Order: sequence, then structure tokens, then C-alpha cells
Amino acid sequence: MTIIDAVTTTTAQLPNQSPAQSTYQTRVADYWNAEENPVNLELGRIDDLYHHHYGLGDADWSVLDDDSDPARRRDRITAELHRLEQAQAELLARHLGPLSPADRVFDAGCGRGGGSVVAHLRYGCQADGVTISAKQAEFAGEQARKRGIDDRVRYHHRNMLDTGLPSGQFAASWNNESTMYVELELLFAEHARLLRRGGRYVTITGCYNDTYGRASREVSLINAHYICDIHPRSEYFRAMARNRLVPTHVEDLTAAALPYWELRKQADHLVTGIEDTFITAYENGSFQYLLIVADRV
Amino acid sequence: MTIIDAVTTTTAQLPNQSPAQSTYQTRVADYWNAEENPVNLELGRIDDLYHHHYGLGDADWSVLDDDSDPARRRDRITAELHRLEQAQAELLARHLGPLSPADRVFDAGCGRGGGSVVAHLRYGCQADGVTISAKQAEFAGEQARKRGIDDRVRYHHRNMLDTGLPSGQFAASWNNESTMYVELELLFAEHARLLRRGGRYVTITGCYNDTYGRASREVSLINAHYICDIHPRSEYFRAMARNRLVPTHVEDLTAAALPYWELRKQADHLVTGIEDTFITAYENGSFQYLLIVADRV
Amino acid sequence: MTIIDAVTTTTAQLPNQSPAQSTYQTRVADYWNAEENPVNLELGRIDDLYHHHYGLGDADWSVLDDDSDPARRRDRITAELHRLEQAQAELLARHLGPLSPADRVFDAGCGRGGGSVVAHLRYGCQADGVTISAKQAEFAGEQARKRGIDDRVRYHHRNMLDTGLPSGQFAASWNNESTMYVELELLFAEHARLLRRGGRYVTITGCYNDTYGRASREVSLINAHYICDIHPRSEYFRAMARNRLVPTHVEDLTAAALPYWELRKQADHLVTGIEDTFITAYENGSFQYLLIVADRV
Amino acid sequence: MTIIDAVTTTTAQLPNQSPAQSTYQTRVADYWNAEENPVNLELGRIDDLYHHHYGLGDADWSVLDDDSDPARRRDRITAELHRLEQAQAELLARHLGPLSPADRVFDAGCGRGGGSVVAHLRYGCQADGVTISAKQAEFAGEQARKRGIDDRVRYHHRNMLDTGLPSGQFAASWNNESTMYVELELLFAEHARLLRRGGRYVTITGCYNDTYGRASREVSLINAHYICDIHPRSEYFRAMARNRLVPTHVEDLTAAALPYWELRKQADHLVTGIEDTFITAYENGSFQYLLIVADRV
Amino acid sequence: MTIIDAVTTTTAQLPNQSPAQSTYQTRVADYWNAEENPVNLELGRIDDLYHHHYGLGDADWSVLDDDSDPARRRDRITAELHRLEQAQAELLARHLGPLSPADRVFDAGCGRGGGSVVAHLRYGCQADGVTISAKQAEFAGEQARKRGIDDRVRYHHRNMLDTGLPSGQFAASWNNESTMYVELELLFAEHARLLRRGGRYVTITGCYNDTYGRASREVSLINAHYICDIHPRSEYFRAMARNRLVPTHVEDLTAAALPYWELRKQADHLVTGIEDTFITAYENGSFQYLLIVADRV
Amino acid sequence: MTIIDAVTTTTAQLPNQSPAQSTYQTRVADYWNAEENPVNLELGRIDDLYHHHYGLGDADWSVLDDDSDPARRRDRITAELHRLEQAQAELLARHLGPLSPADRVFDAGCGRGGGSVVAHLRYGCQADGVTISAKQAEFAGEQARKRGIDDRVRYHHRNMLDTGLPSGQFAASWNNESTMYVELELLFAEHARLLRRGGRYVTITGCYNDTYGRASREVSLINAHYICDIHPRSEYFRAMARNRLVPTHVEDLTAAALPYWELRKQADHLVTGIEDTFITAYENGSFQYLLIVADRV
Repeated sequence: MTIIDAVTTTTAQLPNQSPAQSTYQTRVADYWNAEENPVNLELGRIDDLYHHHYGLGDADWSVLDDDSDPARRRDRITAELHRLEQAQAELLARHLGPLSPADRVFDAGCGRGGGSVVAHLRYGCQADGVTISAKQAEFAGEQARKRGIDDRVRYHHRNMLDTGLPSGQFAASWNNESTMYVELELLFAEHARLLRRGGRYVTITGCYNDTYGRASREVSLINAHYICDIHPRSEYFRAMARNRLVPTHVEDLTAAALPYWELRKQADHLVTGIEDTFITAYENGSFQYLLIVADRV
Repeated sequence: MTIIDAVTTTTAQLPNQSPAQSTYQTRVADYWNAEENPVNLELGRIDDLYHHHYGLGDADWSVLDDDSDPARRRDRITAELHRLEQAQAELLARHLGPLSPADRVFDAGCGRGGGSVVAHLRYGCQADGVTISAKQAEFAGEQARKRGIDDRVRYHHRNMLDTGLPSGQFAASWNNESTMYVELELLFAEHARLLRRGGRYVTITGCYNDTYGRASREVSLINAHYICDIHPRSEYFRAMARNRLVPTHVEDLTAAALPYWELRKQADHLVTGIEDTFITAYENGSFQYLLIVADRV
Repeated sequence: MTIIDAVTTTTAQLPNQSPAQSTYQTRVADYWNAEENPVNLELGRIDDLYHHHYGLGDADWSVLDDDSDPARRRDRITAELHRLEQAQAELLARHLGPLSPADRVFDAGCGRGGGSVVAHLRYGCQADGVTISAKQAEFAGEQARKRGIDDRVRYHHRNMLDTGLPSGQFAASWNNESTMYVELELLFAEHARLLRRGGRYVTITGCYNDTYGRASREVSLINAHYICDIHPRSEYFRAMARNRLVPTHVEDLTAAALPYWELRKQADHLVTGIEDTFITAYENGSFQYLLIVADRV
Repeated sequence: MTIIDAVTTTTAQLPNQSPAQSTYQTRVADYWNAEENPVNLELGRIDDLYHHHYGLGDADWSVLDDDSDPARRRDRITAELHRLEQAQAELLARHLGPLSPADRVFDAGCGRGGGSVVAHLRYGCQADGVTISAKQAEFAGEQARKRGIDDRVRYHHRNMLDTGLPSGQFAASWNNESTMYVELELLFAEHARLLRRGGRYVTITGCYNDTYGRASREVSLINAHYICDIHPRSEYFRAMARNRLVPTHVEDLTAAALPYWELRKQADHLVTGIEDTFITAYENGSFQYLLIVADRV
Repeated sequence: MTIIDAVTTTTAQLPNQSPAQSTYQTRVADYWNAEENPVNLELGRIDDLYHHHYGLGDADWSVLDDDSDPARRRDRITAELHRLEQAQAELLARHLGPLSPADRVFDAGCGRGGGSVVAHLRYGCQADGVTISAKQAEFAGEQARKRGIDDRVRYHHRNMLDTGLPSGQFAASWNNESTMYVELELLFAEHARLLRRGGRYVTITGCYNDTYGRASREVSLINAHYICDIHPRSEYFRAMARNRLVPTHVEDLTAAALPYWELRKQADHLVTGIEDTFITAYENGSFQYLLIVADRV
Repeated sequence: MTIIDAVTTTTAQLPNQSPAQSTYQTRVADYWNAEENPVNLELGRIDDLYHHHYGLGDADWSVLDDDSDPARRRDRITAELHRLEQAQAELLARHLGPLSPADRVFDAGCGRGGGSVVAHLRYGCQADGVTISAKQAEFAGEQARKRGIDDRVRYHHRNMLDTGLPSGQFAASWNNESTMYVELELLFAEHARLLRRGGRYVTITGCYNDTYGRASREVSLINAHYICDIHPRSEYFRAMARNRLVPTHVEDLTAAALPYWELRKQADHLVTGIEDTFITAYENGSFQYLLIVADRV
């Protein structure tokens, strides 16, 4: 049976964490409990891999020109966007490995659970996903149950900063577009605690670009849209350096992220209104879509 | 004559600073070069004390009920708001002292210059104001010239992180709602360099409240409005601790700031549209209006 | 029954602490086990609120002029000093709240227990006081028993740096003139561990003033008198910054503390001999009586 | 004329540096003053681009099978190795840009000067190379003179930790296999001082892999061979985080470096004896060939 | 019975440690599992005190001149070297005290166990030795059993960074030439956890000399010989400062170590081939034999 | 001519220092300007080597038994104490070397100048002494003039934290019982700036012992006596670790310091009243007389 725990107070708490949920966290949980954007749900329905992140790679622009039938055009656009977000999930999963079915992985900020399923399908590994949204955890658990993998892939309604999961037992862990809701210092301390020595940490994230300066207007609008707090790029490396996570691969995915946004912008049935802001932020250099792969040493 | 320098590259630069202006800084400068909000200009015109910050204290609500004449009503509201912003400037200035005419003070992010004039009028001290907006520096210089105090009060078009002003010569310095445009670590390093041992630093600023959590949606909307990047409260104390600035007085001015916003919200001729966001942010606990008074040790 | 534990070795010790008591701690414990100053005992007897700190606010100087009867004059002086020390305790308690009877609070260095009783009476909350003096813990426990609140207010004979109390369970905690016996780094780590996220920490303390320079002769004499080691003001903010305690209110109470000392100096039946040193230290600027209110973030 | 300065004592020294050369530095300088390995000199002679680093990319193995003539075979192997080392230099140079002829770049540990010439040829920029070996500086200067670019490309006999070059004037800087001779903390402080805000730093380097553990026997043998002190990968990111250098691209080039070594191992006229150690170190996972591209923020 | 545990995963792990053994650690363990150098075994056989470190003090050079009989000469040299290594062990043990039979001590990197026996014989204290080599742990345990002290002196096959031993229970601990296999930051954190407040830490170690510069060729050759990673002297004091270990006695034993090496170099039956490298390293100033005695505060 | 500068404001100030003298510094200067203790002046008169520190080594107790003549007895006691303080100065000077006449040394807190003369006589080196007392600087200069060495040994009336002396020019520097007047972080930054790489720093100082706990009553009484602020032992090593000063020799001189104090206590013509406090502090373990020798790396 899929495990849906209540937010847990672990007995062996890390010094800097305590169980009380902040108003901010409640508001973020409320947002995701209520969120029903077609761009997340309709894409996921295609093959029951529900993501909460963006896509990567060149788009097949011909889907826009399909004027055979409006519904068919919509479906092709939806499928193409899903293909791109699936490519992103695969890119992340590729960097987790090699892993074996004996390994455990941790999905921090798992949303509706697609990433954990992708990792499990690729490596056979066990996965634990954690989300602050009870509804997401329930949804994800239901998906795992339907697939019959709920003994290998578990979702928990918990705080990713204080998971209550055991120390040093995980071979890999990741955040897929979920670091902007938490303090990196606390987040990486938790990953470092969970990972075994030599374990792998991967994140794909939007960060603001210190080279540009402070957060641009566009970055602030994205923050306002999602109730998040995007970190500067520098903060990732500073917090990793303090928590025994050593980068081994860093890649600026900004250019590869643009086709997804350009396509989505033209998908009237899927737009949420934030599309232009993302495109401007990427293009004016104030915002970056970044992959960081690091080793726990 | 009032000195309006170009952005200066000092020969004895601090290690972490270099003269190149970031895109972000250019965008902030552009904003303030273009800014002509009545709430700043009309209030200043009353007695030629031009501020760029908010007000403090109880409002005289009767100005709203003045229905003798629309123009008169507007003028009374304008005057009342100016009285409140002047009270804020006086509160800050009070904490700078005691100072004598032999002392020099530094106004970081001086805007149109009102704060430096207030300090000079109160103590007779010399003042140097610095702003990244050439137009503000020019405007402020013109004001000083008109008052005939331009030999004592100087405005510079420079970066407050890299002022080129001499080390250890200032008895006091401050930021009045201008810290949210810069990295605090660099800012406090510059104040610590300029202040003599025992000198006084004062800031009144909007910060986001770590007790609430990360930046709320309202805080992000304020950031988007002003192209700024509001710091968490914790960051002020962390950066001060690293730069020999030791708090001696800290006061939460949030409640005292609300009347200004409630009144301004009803001043149709002055609103900029951000009023409700401020009021919500103050009331939901995610945002604070804070006074910090610290000694350079 | 009131709980008087022996000094406890907790199984889940913080990394930097170990159970062995230092010679210094033994000497401090001996001092307080032996201490019977009338200024503490006689004041407490008035209403069974025994404090071990100083007073705040304007004094009623007329008590000195009461020449009706020497005993009555003495009693009036005693009562007035108690009123002032009670005002101090109330000021501190006010900053702990709001709290409800469901909340737990922690009194670090509780002495004869007055502060915990004040907090309980005001908020109905549960309190745990900790003192290194077995005799003080016993005395305080006896008081709680007499008041019939020993199920809500408990005193422990323990080290405040290593309390063995549970993590993240306290809504508020404080040190009332007890920080000068311990390393602030270890102290604030323990408060941060005990407080829940969003919890409140308050201290009223004598600190030496970095603006003046290093510890003055008077500060050293006070240290010698109480076998304590007064910290510079800067150290409080540095150690808080490292332990997720963020100031929200800081107030220099030095001027408000002087009347207590001036009155006590003239109370022949209560003086301990340290009065002039305190007055000189406050007046020459080398010593400060400081309130810091901080949030656990 | 090419400038060959003596080791300079700058008047505005960084706090942590002093002009005295250590015994270690003298020994390193002696090594490079005496070094005449064919693998460096013969490769450079081909087109007067003298490098002191290894190569990247797939090798044309057919050169080994050329049995037409021993000399011709040797020449073809030499040319192929030079092609690979040139590819490495080009990869590094590509990450410096975009740059214009108005820009200045800094080559830390320039050896015989090939890297500065590559950068100049690609971008037209001015270059300053620094080496601790007087003989290398002289050789490199002579090459620049022959090419007629000695007004744009200058080599200095100086310490790369204390260059005496002006602050904030450089658009890009790099270390090509030269970081293992110095403390990274001091090195990155100097790069951060020289680079303008937004400037680019690039290094290609051999580092030992913290995931493997401490330095392996092979890493120590390489250290002994070159009198160097290879850093762990973690140290790069830690020192960058402390010196405002923020990675934007990190790539593990180990696999791409192996063909160079496999080919060189079979080049009897070029081997130095360290080839097998490198191959083993790369293959057992204890050693990595790493590219880091970072921005000065 | 002597306890030979398997490498243990403690339930209350330190945040930065996890149980997985690195390739490096495996390789070090393999080295020591296979090591059978006469210089360690033959010396130990004399009185069953098996050390894995060098000697101190003036040598009796007359043993070299003994030409009565080759075997006798060999024995006398062997005995003299053992006398010197025993003197080293005694010097270290002297600095652990005073200790009583009630005290527990911890021997980090115990090798074949001689040091723990020396400490037990001197003070009667209990000892726990830890080595990463299963074979050494077994050998040492067998020795303790033979002496009948296996209830007081225990050897464990464990990682010295993660011993699983109880917190704050040890009166003294040491590393005798075993710090060069581990990160000092993690090592001293573990010692600080194990030692009670006021406990004593002692190390005798070879470190490289920052005054000379970076690691010399000789230091790297020693690293290659033993698969170790010798730290600079500075790193010891930096890591101690961060882990509440405060030096009270520091002594450069380099000169006192030379006679041992000069004698061993001439002992054909005992040399391992590294002798000249040590002598050169000591003499050129790049390497030091250092004693550090510190208090856990 | 001996140079007696006024307190200097250097143009190239270190970031954290500013020229204003604190009240504390003024009070310390006043103390030493007024100080005329026979124990300093009468001892110095013997051979014009005026020290301001204590003595080391076994005393010749027979001087106490000399009852031939009270004046002779007094003189013999005075001479014996001078011999002991001279032994201390020689011990410190020995650790500065080897030095040559080409070298410069820096005496931080030089008092009446004896230490600089001792160093000059031993090595022929140039010396710069700095004291905050104008009277001491003048006295010391006069002594140098009388000896005819004022071209080699100079005394300055300056702040030892901000000497204005040139960077990287000094081969050795020291504090002889003068560190307790200043912040160690600032002090060691200044020494690190002045010393060349590989230079030597020596201090003999009284520190309080963290193993004992916080400052004992006796330590506080000593602080009150001299208006100083004795540091814990730990602080020396922490501040050195942050300022590139690496200990090479540390020695607890407490036992060797006691004879001086026992003898001085019985010298009625020389006692200042603090003798018993020192003896108690040394004997109860709360206070230590420590030698630290460190290298500037």
C-alpha cells in the first residue's frame, strides 16, 4: 500500500529544524493542493506520467500548423509539450545513475510523482517522493498503486527539509524545479544526511543570474506567480560547498528550455499567463535554467 | 558648487568590487531617472524636502473628510502625507546623533536628497549623498544650491557599494529604504570602511520576515514594482555581524507605517497602485518596516 | 511533584557538548548555592516572587525621605526595589507573547524561579526552569509547590547548555541576566534546538559596549564580584546570526536601570558593595543593560 | 617590446600576500627553467604554439600504423598529439568569450605562452601571461615578438598570486593546468581582483576526486613527478564560493583526455614516463580532468 | 573476550558521515591487511609491543659497529630501533595523563595495537583502538588476549571517522601517525564528540610545512609509498580551532626523529626503501614531525 | 634621531580599522603614561633594560635570607627579579631567530623598550617598537639614544592594530604580554600584513584556560588591575588560523613563571598588590602563562 504519512516530527531532528510549519509553507501547500492547471494535468494524462516542470529540446513546430481539426491540433501540441517535459525528466534521471534495483532514491518536492516513476522505470530502484501538498502525495500514491509499483515507489506528505527518512541510505536524490520554495542551506543539509558517501545529487532549477545583478522584474513576477523565492546561482554553489555536495557537471539549459516556452505560449488551451515573463527573463539574461550534478563526499 | 561626479573607479578598490555596472544596476538607474511619481514630487514641493520613502505615525484622518473644495482636500492630503514622511526622516536623523558641524555623514541611496538636508539642518554637519541615478543627483544638487548649502551638502552620481569616499572619515551614515537594491554584504563593508570607529549606522527598510517563511507573493509583487530585491530580516543581522556593525536599537515600525499607506491609498491623485500590496504584506506578517541602529566597532 | 533532576547526560547530545562539569561551573554553582543576599531574599519575600536580577523604571524617591520609622523606611525601600525588579520581569515576559496555556516556555538560568512564575501567571503556559545551583532549583520547586502550580512550572538542576529537554517543543525561552556565565555560541545553539520554528527568544542582560572598546575596569570588577564573564554586545548578535535567532526588537535599557541602582545604593540593609561599580560602568559608557528580542527562524 | 618584469612587489598588496618567494616556488621555477621535454618543445615547433598541457578528443590512431618511414611516423604522431593539445586550448578559449579587441585577458601560469596567443588570435584581445619561470617568460616573449604581436600579448616573470596587474580591468582570465602549484584561496582572490564584474574565469585542470576518497597513489606519483600538489575537486568549488566566482559550466573531460594519453604512451620519442600513471589514475576514478567555467559576480 | 566488530553503522550518525566505505579506504585497508614489513613485525616481537610509527631520541650508534656476529648485530639494531619507537610511544602516552583506571581512552588508527597497551600499562585505563584493517584489529586483539587485558583493551575493525563509540565518555584520545589517511575536519569532529569536556587529545604526525610552500616532491613520494595524503601543518590548527580542540603544547620533533631514520637506513634487514626520502624531506625543511597536545573545551 | 611619531592615520588603511581612538584605549594609555611602579623602573635601572613583563625560571631563594643589610637584601632581590625577567625576554628573542642585521623586526606593545633592545643586541637587526603610551615611547627612544642605537631601534607612539608600517617587510614580530589590550583578530591581521611570507611571530602572554571554563574571579581581578581583557587560550589559535599564522611551538610556561611571583610577593619594596591573585590564578588552573611561536605562511 502506498504510504501517505502526516507531516512527521522525527525524534532525531537536525539541530536547525523544528516541526512547526510556517505560514509561507501553508500557503505553498494550499497553492499546490488547489492547482489544476491543464498544462500539468492534460499532459500527464497521455501516459500517466505527471510532471510539474518544464520541457527541454527542440520542438516539432509543425504541430502548430496542423489545421486538420482544432481538437487534433490541440492534442498534438499537448503531446509535443509532454514529449519535451518527458525529455527533461529523462535528462535528470540519466544523471542519477548508474543505479541498480537494490538502490534507494529520494525525490524532493515530488509533485504528482512523475519523476520517481521515471527513475524507477529506468533503474528498477526504490523511490521515496516527498511533497508538502497532501493532495499531490495522494494523487501520486494513487498513480503508483495503479501501476502496481507502490511497494517500490512511495510518496509522503512531508517537509523536504525534515523528511524523517533514514540517514546514509540513499544512492541518489534530486530536486526537479522545487528548490525555490526552501532555504538551500537546510535543503542541502538534508540531502547530505540522506545520501550515502559517494551518492549522487541532481537538480534542474531556475535560478537568477548574479552576472546580471539582483533579481530582475521578471524574476520577481515569476516569484509572485508561484509564491516561490528564486535563488541566485551563486547561492547553490555556496550552500553545496558547505554541505559536502561537490559539482561534477553543470550545464546552462536556458537555450534548450526556450522552445518549450515558445510552443506553450501558442497553446491557448494550456497557457497560464506566465509564459511571456519566462521568455523575457531567459532572453534578457536575468534568469537561467540550470542543471547541477553533484557528488556527496 | 555641488559636485556631480561621474561613476568613479577608485584606485584603492575593495577586493570584491569592480567598476563595471551590471545590467540590473542600469535598469534601476533607468527607473529612477524616469520616475516622476506625484507622491514623491508633489510632497517634496511643499517645503523642498524631497523624500523617496514612506511615512510614520498616526494620520490626521480628518483631511479625508474635507469636502470644502476638491483641490483643498487634495492639498491637505498631500500635506498630511508629507508630514508623515517628514516624521520618518526625522526619526532616522535623530538616531544619527549627537553630531556636530565638524562631523561628516554619508547618505547611501540619497534619491532627490531630502535626507541629507534634514541631517544638515538638524546638526550642521557636512553630508555626502550618493545615488545611482544621474537625474536624482542633479536634482538634489540643484536643491542644495538653491538653499545655499551646496558647500556642506554634496550629491554624487555613484554606486553606493563603491563610493570612492575616504576611509574612516564619517561620523554617521544611513540607508533610508535603499538597501533592497544591493547585496548587504558589500553594502555594509562599504559603510564599515567609511565610518570611523564608534561611528553610527542607521537604516529604515522594508524586509521580509523569516518568521513567516520565504518571500510572500506580496513581497515579490513589491520587488517587481520597484525592480528591487527585498532581503529577509535575518540577512541584515548576518551581514552586520560580519562587518563590525553592532545593533544598539532595533524597532519594528510596521504598525506605525500603516496609517501612511491607508491614507495614501485614498489619495486618488497620488496612488501608484502598489498601496494594497503593501497593506496586505504588512498585515499578513510577511513584510516588516524595520529600524536598525548600529555602532561601527 | 516538582522535578529536581540530577545533572543529566542526554543520550542525544549535541556534538559540541559533553556532560563533564568544569571547575568554573562548580565554582559558579557553589556561589549560588551559598548566596543569601538580602537584596534577593527580602525582596522576594514580599509576594514570593524571587528574582535574581535588577530593576527598571523611575523610582519613587520619597521612600528615602520616610523618617517615620527606620523599619518602615527600610520596608518601603525594599518594596520599591521589588516593584522595580518586578517591572523588569514583566517587561521581559511581555515580549515572550502572545502565548497560550497550550504553550511551553524555557527559563535558562532560572535562579530562585520568579521569572517562570511570572510567565505562567501571565499566559497560563507551562514552564521549565533550569539552574546550575541545586539549592536554587530546590527553593524554586518549593515555591511552585506552595502555589500549587508545580504540575505546570518545573525547575531542574541542570546545565542550561545541555538541558536534555525535547527539541522544537518550546514556544518561547529566555535568559534574564544569566548569559554571562556561559559561551553564547553554545547557549544559542541550545535555545535554537529547543524552540519551535517561529518561537521567541528574549534576553535582558548586561553587556560590555564595543563602542567604548574592550572591557573596562568596572566591567572586570563586576565579573570578579559574580564570577561571571560579561560578553561584548557584538558577541550576542554574532552568535545569534549563527544560530537562526533573528532580532526583532533591541532596546538599550541602561538609562532605565539607573534609578534602581541609585536607590539600592542608599538602602543600607540591602547593599552588596557592587552598586557604585555598576553606576560608574553605566555612566562611563562601558557597560549597557540591553534587551534583545529575537525570533527562531 | 615584450615586457619581462622581475618579480614585483606591488605597493597596494593584498593583505595575505607578501613578496618573499618560498623554497617550494623556487623549486618549481627551477623545474620549469630546466624543462626541455620533447613533448612540449617538438609539438610546439609545428606552428609555434607552445603548450604545457594535455590534449582532448578522439585520436587518429592510424598514425601509429604508418610504417612507411620511422621519421614520418614520428612526425605524424607528434602532429596528432599537437592537434589534440591545440583542441584543448581552443576549447578553453571558446569559453572565455565573447570578447572584443578592446578587452584584456589574463593567462595565469602561461608557460611558454601558447594559450595567450590562441586567445589573441581568436578574439583580437590583449593578453597578459604570467609565469614563475624566467626562462618560460623569455621564451614566450620571444615568440610574441616573432609574430609581431608583442604590443598586444605580454608575458611577465611574476607570481600568479601577486601579479601587480590592475584591479577590475580584465574581461576574462584562466588557468590551463596550472592551479596545482598554488593555494586556490589565494589564486581565486587574485582572479577576482583582476576581473571586472561580469568577467569570465575558465580553468581546465586535473583534480583528485573526493568521491574516490583522498589522493590515490597515482595522484601522489603525479605530484612527485611535477612537484605539484593536486587539489581535490571540492576545494575548487569551496574556494570559488568564497571569492565571488560562480560556476556556469562544469564538464568532466576525463574520458576525452584518455586518447591523448594512450597515443602519447606509444610515442617513444615523446614519453616522459608518467603516461601509465595518468591512465591508471583516470581509469580507477581517483583523478579527473575537469573544465570549470565561472562568472565573476 | 576481545571485541572485533564489523564496520558499524551507528544509529545516531553525525550529519556529515555515512557508512559507505570509499575506494580509497578499501585500498588503504588492503595495504595494511597485506603489510608484513619486518620493521614493524620484528621490532614488535621483542616485547610484544607492536607499533606502526617511527622513533625518537638519540640512537646508540655503537650497534652498527658490532662485528662480533652478523645476527647479533642485526638483533642489536632491531632492538635499538624498537627502543626508539617505544620512546616515541611513551612520549605520546605521557601527554595523555594524568589518567586513572576509571578513565577510558581512544586510540584512533591503532594499527597492531601497541599504543593502547602502552597507555593501559601506564595508567591502568581502559582503551578502545580502532583500525580500518580487519587483520590489524584481529592481530591486536590476539595480543591483548595473550596479555590477559582484553577486558580492558579492546580493538575494533571500524572507521575512525565514525566509530560508533559513545559521546563524551573518553578522558583522552590520540592519533599516532594515522591522521594522514583522513580528512582532519571529520576526524577532529569525531574526537571532539568522544572526549568529555576537559579531555585531552594528542597527535604525533608527519605534516608538510607551509613555510616551505606546498607539498615537496619528497612529501608526494611518501604519500605514494603509503597511499596517504599528508596534511599541511596549518590544516591541523584550522581544523582543531573549528572543533573545540585547543593546543596546549606543540613541539617540532623533526630533529629528534632523524637518528631513527639514519639508523634504520643502515639496517639492511629492515629497510623498506623510503628511508632516504624521509631524511631528505626532514632536512630540506618541507616535512616536519610534530607533536600536538590539545584540550577538548 | 629616535622617531616619536604621533598616532598616524595611514592612507592605505586595512578595511576594519579606523583612526579614532576608543575611550578604552585612552584609558589604557593614561594608565601607562602614569605608571611608575618600582618593579618596572628599579629593575630596569640595573642595566637599562626596561621590561614590562614577568620573569621565568628557578629563583635564587637565598637572596631572601640575606640579612647582612636591608638595602643590600633589597638590591639582591631586585637583581634576582631582573635576572628572571631578562631570562623571559631572552627566551622570547631566541624564538625570533635566526635573524641577520639585514632583517627588520616589529615589537607590538613595546612598553619602555627593553625587548627591542634585547633583539637588536642578539641579532643586530633593526627594530620598530610601537606603544599607545606617548610617555613610554619617549622613554624608550631616550634609552636607544643613550645607547647610540637609535638609528637601528625606533619607537613609535602608535596603535599596534594600525601601525602604518610597510607590508611584508618584517622578518619577525612579537607581543610580550601586550595582547590582552586588543582584539586578537585585528592584531594578527596586522602582524600578518607586516611579516613577509615565512616570517616568524612570537608571543608570551597570560591567557585564561578554557579547560577550566570561563574567566575565573582571579582573572577578572587581574583584568581590573591592569584595565586589560585577558583572552581565552582558544581565541589565540582561532585568530591565528584565520590570519595565516601557523604555530610551530607552544609551551605552557605557568610552572616556570611561579618562582618569579613567589619571590616578588616577598619583595616589600616592589609589590604592587596583585601578586597573590596571580599565584592563585596559576595554581587553580584558571590562568596560564603561554608561549606561542608561529610562522607567517
